[in-house]
Amino acid sequence: MAKCRVAAVQMSTVEKKSQNVENAAKYINDLMNEVYGPKPDFIVLPEMFNCPYETQNFPFYAEERGELTWKHMSQLAAHFGVYIIAGSVPEYDENDCVYNTSYVFDREGKEIACHRKVHLFDIDVKGGQSFKESETLTPGDHFTTFETEFGTMGLCICFDIRFVETYRIMAERGAKMVFVPAAFNMTTGPAHWELTHRARALDNQMYVLACAPARNEEASYVSYGHSMLTDPWGRVVASLDEKEGVLNEEVDLDYVDDIRAQLPILSARRKDLYELNEK
Amino acid sequence: MAKCRVAAVQMSTVEKKSQNVENAAKYINDLMNEVYGPKPDFIVLPEMFNCPYETQNFPFYAEERGELTWKHMSQLAAHFGVYIIAGSVPEYDENDCVYNTSYVFDREGKEIACHRKVHLFDIDVKGGQSFKESETLTPGDHFTTFETEFGTMGLCICFDIRFVETYRIMAERGAKMVFVPAAFNMTTGPAHWELTHRARALDNQMYVLACAPARNEEASYVSYGHSMLTDPWGRVVASLDEKEGVLNEEVDLDYVDDIRAQLPILSARRKDLYELNEK
Repeated sequence: MAKCRVAAVQMSTVEKKSQNVENAAKYINDLMNEVYGPKPDFIVLPEMFNCPYETQNFPFYAEERGELTWKHMSQLAAHFGVYIIAGSVPEYDENDCVYNTSYVFDREGKEIACHRKVHLFDIDVKGGQSFKESETLTPGDHFTTFETEFGTMGLCICFDIRFVETYRIMAERGAKMVFVPAAFNMTTGPAHWELTHRARALDNQMYVLACAPARNEEASYVSYGHSMLTDPWGRVVASLDEKEGVLNEEVDLDYVDDIRAQLPILSARRKDLYELNEK
Repeated sequence: MAKCRVAAVQMSTVEKKSQNVENAAKYINDLMNEVYGPKPDFIVLPEMFNCPYETQNFPFYAEERGELTWKHMSQLAAHFGVYIIAGSVPEYDENDCVYNTSYVFDREGKEIACHRKVHLFDIDVKGGQSFKESETLTPGDHFTTFETEFGTMGLCICFDIRFVETYRIMAERGAKMVFVPAAFNMTTGPAHWELTHRARALDNQMYVLACAPARNEEASYVSYGHSMLTDPWGRVVASLDEKEGVLNEEVDLDYVDDIRAQLPILSARRKDLYELNEK
């Protein structure tokens, strides 16, 4: 099975956590009831979809695995028999560290992957955006891929995409598609959002589906939006604007193999001269 | 000294080797006589600037180090006191292997670097471009950086840019700018030329100056042209169209340090989790 259908929910994030979770559930329900076209096999939500994106919020909104948000998403995945890449949420671990975490649930509602953002977003652009995730967050310590009946899929969160190593590692593990809950801002979005996603897709010859929160001009961190699906030739297949909306597209993972054969990059790496190793 | 001036000569390539070398010399002469604006510190020529880009030509046009093309470029560099990145040429080594080679001459005409294309261009795109450099060429076995009074510069050739590792290795060695003799074609040019150069510049937060041959619709391999300077924020600073022409721009290498401080990527790599090693 090479063809699958993938959907990104570009939802807004509000103050009330439970309302965010309900809003995500409503979109998932509508998607699986074919309100937005044929049923998808994979649904991805935005970065920090249950919590306004501000560093001081993360510890207050954080939950441990198995709590409200986790449970609701697991139940929805099982109920509808769909893979849910549950955007990201602030997660408490047993040591009270807080992570920017994306859970993946399979069609039975089982958690089959959990990515904790590896590269924290600490920037200070002159005349532009400043943000320091490391004020309240702890970084993850692993890269994330997961197996499905369509093949290996990759998962990373926002700033992780800035690092070419993230994608090489996922490609090396066999990923043909990567899901990216992400929230670029009004400085980096117009400058780098499309460029970076297209480049990762092209350089690793894979599909990349990025899912952003809808823009809220009143928020302290203003999301760029523009959820986007990019193909292994570096083309934008579909994208949203800044408003709430849903992207729902079919992808053909055999096309990944075609492109990798026609324009060999991964197989033409000079592994006799360099090697990227996970530690 | 952080500010320097860089020029790319987007010249045509004809059948007669000596005419190509004379044509390059004419452009260098004109640049140093300020026909195209202030004198540059660095001049880069296109890939295979002395030889029409066809695999069967390479052995016939190839020269050993010190022969016609090498000597002429060295003399020009010394005469004008300018760095010349002499595009690329087919090079014979002592074992009769042929390489796609770029020589760099300093202001005294001394060869200070020599890059042999590491990743040979073997592609076969359905309904598009096919080419197989490995039919006649041997790949190089090292990456290339060189020291100048402005800092460390990098150098690679065309298909080398497809590999993110090439740029990480040059960045790791301290390169703040990379010169790229390159000849994309009418399949990969419109699809990937700008995207790839901008992505390498942004991901490694450096300047990238790519120099292509002018387009010749009569040639068996039709160059896309579009020589281009990209900055560390991923912006296109200047670019040419498909015709013969010269790009001559000032770059401020301190801007590299600014961008690397404002949006840390190289320094924020998780070297505790992965490492790219040269062998």
